[in-house]
Amino acid sequence: MEVVFFLRKQNKLAIIPLGGLGEIGKNMTVIRYGSDLVVLDCGLAFPDDDMLGIDLVIPDMTYLVENQDKIRSVVITHGHEDHIGALSYFLRQFPEVPVYGTRLAMGLAEGRLKENRVEKTSLHVIEPGDELVFGKIRVGFIQTSHSIPDAVALYFKTPLGTIVHTGDFKIDYSPVDGKTLDFNKFSQLGDEGVLALMADSTNAESPGFTKSESTVTEALAKAFDGAQGRILLATFASNVSRIQQAVDVACRYGRKIAIVGRSMVNVVNISMELGYLKVPEGKIIDIDEINRYPANQILILTTGSQGEPMAGLSRMSRREHRKIQIQVGDRVIFSASPIPGNEKSVSKTIDALLRLGADVIHERSAGIHVSGHARQEELRLILSLVRPKYLIPVHGEYRMLMCHGKLAEEWGMAKENIFIGENGQTFEFSREEGEVKGALGPVVTSGKVFIDGLGVGDVGNIVLRDRQMLSQDGVFIVVIVMEKSTGKVIAGPDMVSRGFIYVRESGKLMDEAKKVIQQALDKCEAKEVTEWAVIKSSVRDALSKFIYGKTHRRPIILPIIQEV
Amino acid sequence: MEVVFFLRKQNKLAIIPLGGLGEIGKNMTVIRYGSDLVVLDCGLAFPDDDMLGIDLVIPDMTYLVENQDKIRSVVITHGHEDHIGALSYFLRQFPEVPVYGTRLAMGLAEGRLKENRVEKTSLHVIEPGDELVFGKIRVGFIQTSHSIPDAVALYFKTPLGTIVHTGDFKIDYSPVDGKTLDFNKFSQLGDEGVLALMADSTNAESPGFTKSESTVTEALAKAFDGAQGRILLATFASNVSRIQQAVDVACRYGRKIAIVGRSMVNVVNISMELGYLKVPEGKIIDIDEINRYPANQILILTTGSQGEPMAGLSRMSRREHRKIQIQVGDRVIFSASPIPGNEKSVSKTIDALLRLGADVIHERSAGIHVSGHARQEELRLILSLVRPKYLIPVHGEYRMLMCHGKLAEEWGMAKENIFIGENGQTFEFSREEGEVKGALGPVVTSGKVFIDGLGVGDVGNIVLRDRQMLSQDGVFIVVIVMEKSTGKVIAGPDMVSRGFIYVRESGKLMDEAKKVIQQALDKCEAKEVTEWAVIKSSVRDALSKFIYGKTHRRPIILPIIQEV
Repeated sequence: MEVVFFLRKQNKLAIIPLGGLGEIGKNMTVIRYGSDLVVLDCGLAFPDDDMLGIDLVIPDMTYLVENQDKIRSVVITHGHEDHIGALSYFLRQFPEVPVYGTRLAMGLAEGRLKENRVEKTSLHVIEPGDELVFGKIRVGFIQTSHSIPDAVALYFKTPLGTIVHTGDFKIDYSPVDGKTLDFNKFSQLGDEGVLALMADSTNAESPGFTKSESTVTEALAKAFDGAQGRILLATFASNVSRIQQAVDVACRYGRKIAIVGRSMVNVVNISMELGYLKVPEGKIIDIDEINRYPANQILILTTGSQGEPMAGLSRMSRREHRKIQIQVGDRVIFSASPIPGNEKSVSKTIDALLRLGADVIHERSAGIHVSGHARQEELRLILSLVRPKYLIPVHGEYRMLMCHGKLAEEWGMAKENIFIGENGQTFEFSREEGEVKGALGPVVTSGKVFIDGLGVGDVGNIVLRDRQMLSQDGVFIVVIVMEKSTGKVIAGPDMVSRGFIYVRESGKLMDEAKKVIQQALDKCEAKEVTEWAVIKSSVRDALSKFIYGKTHRRPIILPIIQEV
Repeated sequence: MEVVFFLRKQNKLAIIPLGGLGEIGKNMTVIRYGSDLVVLDCGLAFPDDDMLGIDLVIPDMTYLVENQDKIRSVVITHGHEDHIGALSYFLRQFPEVPVYGTRLAMGLAEGRLKENRVEKTSLHVIEPGDELVFGKIRVGFIQTSHSIPDAVALYFKTPLGTIVHTGDFKIDYSPVDGKTLDFNKFSQLGDEGVLALMADSTNAESPGFTKSESTVTEALAKAFDGAQGRILLATFASNVSRIQQAVDVACRYGRKIAIVGRSMVNVVNISMELGYLKVPEGKIIDIDEINRYPANQILILTTGSQGEPMAGLSRMSRREHRKIQIQVGDRVIFSASPIPGNEKSVSKTIDALLRLGADVIHERSAGIHVSGHARQEELRLILSLVRPKYLIPVHGEYRMLMCHGKLAEEWGMAKENIFIGENGQTFEFSREEGEVKGALGPVVTSGKVFIDGLGVGDVGNIVLRDRQMLSQDGVFIVVIVMEKSTGKVIAGPDMVSRGFIYVRESGKLMDEAKKVIQQALDKCEAKEVTEWAVIKSSVRDALSKFIYGKTHRRPIILPIIQEV
């Protein structure tokens, strides 16, 4: 009887992509077996255009709060913001949970935690090849390559089988730091048997192989060639491998290097300190020193490759940078592709730089940027090494996951063994008739938590909807003072508007609006209406109709009644 | 003496790109010789993301108002909105000015004018090959190819020389309507001598040739192949050639055609009426009839290829379309590339359709879309046919114009004969020492006029800046009632906010804010301040500081004082 009971109580293995904006499982994933829960990555996303006024987006951690007694650790795949950037929010809530990652990832995480004044955390540095035991889950770290050094894939050995998660990866046979993906480990896990593979789908729509990061060196050298003036190179602050290549090429061409942009300075400092970025002595100069050197001995490394309005290069393009003025003869190299959604702001930045007389190199065809993510042939190779029973495509929009799934089908996997889901979808594995089978499990709370200024989650859909309406047609405020004893209007209606129309040039409309309000008030008085709610809604309706008729606009109308 | 005087009074020839959002000269160009002025195109643009609440953008017509006695005509290159869409605004201001264009362009223009209730206009249909005389300017129309039938290039013969303007064009050796570009006319003008060429730079960054529009037919057929369910095809409503191909393929596959989307229905009706779109009898069915046919006998032609939130396909993807529900097995074909800036909304639409179980074909590699604009080899060919003395690259962002300029230099044109400018920049030609020379002339008023609802130009930078601020952090209103006789506060402060914070969950913050306001008021009272402006600014400053300290947000703060 007890054996039967034990079998019935057989724990399930659950995998839940829990966070990612548009991209599934990008920022956070949960691996749970019975009462042991490991969190994989803890990152943030940058808001979409329709999330007005929002600064950052982090995963909804409700599921973690509900299961906080089970959380054994956070394991980090690499040091990019979308994988470590929510740690300060997580650790404020779960300060006891230990965090594990490679040296560079932990170095960068520590920097960000300090900035956010989150202290007394327990960050642990691991090496690729290490294994850690968290209850019934054994976690191992596998060396991979990406656009930042020290990236790892992870495996999770559980009583029901092994899960492999690639993290963000590409197969780079000549990475800048010389550390290639650990093919043997993937293959060895495949030999032992892998229950499910979770793999990066970012480039699943792109055929072929992603080029090696180190191919960028020569393309950059070519872009440096013949430049008579200063060179400004914009890339992701976090792309440490790219920065290394820019530094190497600058040294080759006898240029000193100045770094611009808070995030770029931070990453460079931490990477140098930890030995991941190698810069010869005396090569880096302060931004205030650049005018001491001839223009053709200067490289300025800067942020703003995405046209982000507040980043270094964007400010320069608008002539708003405190320290650097673009001058005729400057050469600007965009060593990054626009992330979808940023195309237009990148275009505007390029146009503005050209207008100031700079020479701009930005084409992808110039080879000055390569992706950090695996394309189709690389995905096939990983599938072939790992030979999983199930595939859970992750990291990418829904259509990329679908594409990854189709690729796996072509590769030979049964369609029913490919799980495509959303954030919050549990993928459950359990033993049935001696075999471990996967199935869709319950959907748990997941979603986006908005960070706006100091507020975490205090801006929700109602506030966003108001911001949306305000952004389109502004606000129109009507103030009335009523006498408490008589219920009569004794002052007003006065009107104030913002974002609706330029009032000084719209005197007639405002005069008419005042009449419309007065008529609505008169009607209420005639009917002896005294409930504020009714008066307000009469004013709002009359005014709304009038304004729409005259302008075809729908500002938010706010009638305010004061009583004396 | 009189001869000298006449020579001194020699008229200048001026070319002014006058309208275009980001793209120079896209929506409107002015050609002026002495007191004769011809307007080339009269189009509108769709607002950028930062033009909050704006519906449309038209060119600033101040220059035309200042020179209205000189305006002889408007000549139209083709029937796309960015070339005819501002006619209703133009003709309200200048109702007497005649408009000339090809039959389809005039048909589409007439439709739009009727919608906008602009009547009594004088639209004239011309044929390619026609020449018209407007004072000292002789205007000719040259057949070209683009993504809409009946597109023309223009030449302007003036006493100082001939100007050629390509309009939007590509070189299509097998256009859908069989009408190829009139190579001979370009060449003949070149033989006679062309002073300046204005040429489409949209694809100046792309090497090679743009493929023929007719190559899309077979790609579409391939996309139709094997579809078991309905097919939905999204493209630009104005791409009449594409619609023709979709119709042809639908007929081949025995599918009836339903049209969805107001603009698509309009263009299809006008094009069929004028004979530019040929559809066999009985092939087009009403949207309400689609359920009478098996799914595999249906093609739905729809708008929404750019992910525009209110367009047909986007509504369907959100399950918000009144008539059409996406069902498993539907195949959706995006026969259009995302215009820069629309990538993300297109992605979202695709993801949403996939989630509903549709099959989506969208890759450019599938050949289901080709551009309507000339690439580098085509630009070289036109240069070689026309052999102009000067080149003014137009239609495109600044960097595309630069690229076009470089191409012309490589082709053999002297750098000083290539004019790259902005909207409002006059390019002036005059005779000097017997030779006609070009130079930069004065900059005239140009710019964007915003259409918001019924308002034309009543939303300016102040209103937009307010909308921007409102969109980020909302509005916070403080109302106070003061007694006139004593200057004392007798009611309030009351607070109302929108888009700032969810007030019901922020009771404590609001209570504290009230105290802060009260303190500011008390201070004013203690100092016996009675000027409203001073009181308001005290309240605003104190509240702003408090709110920023607590939330790091900056809502617009509006103190309102009522006096009784």
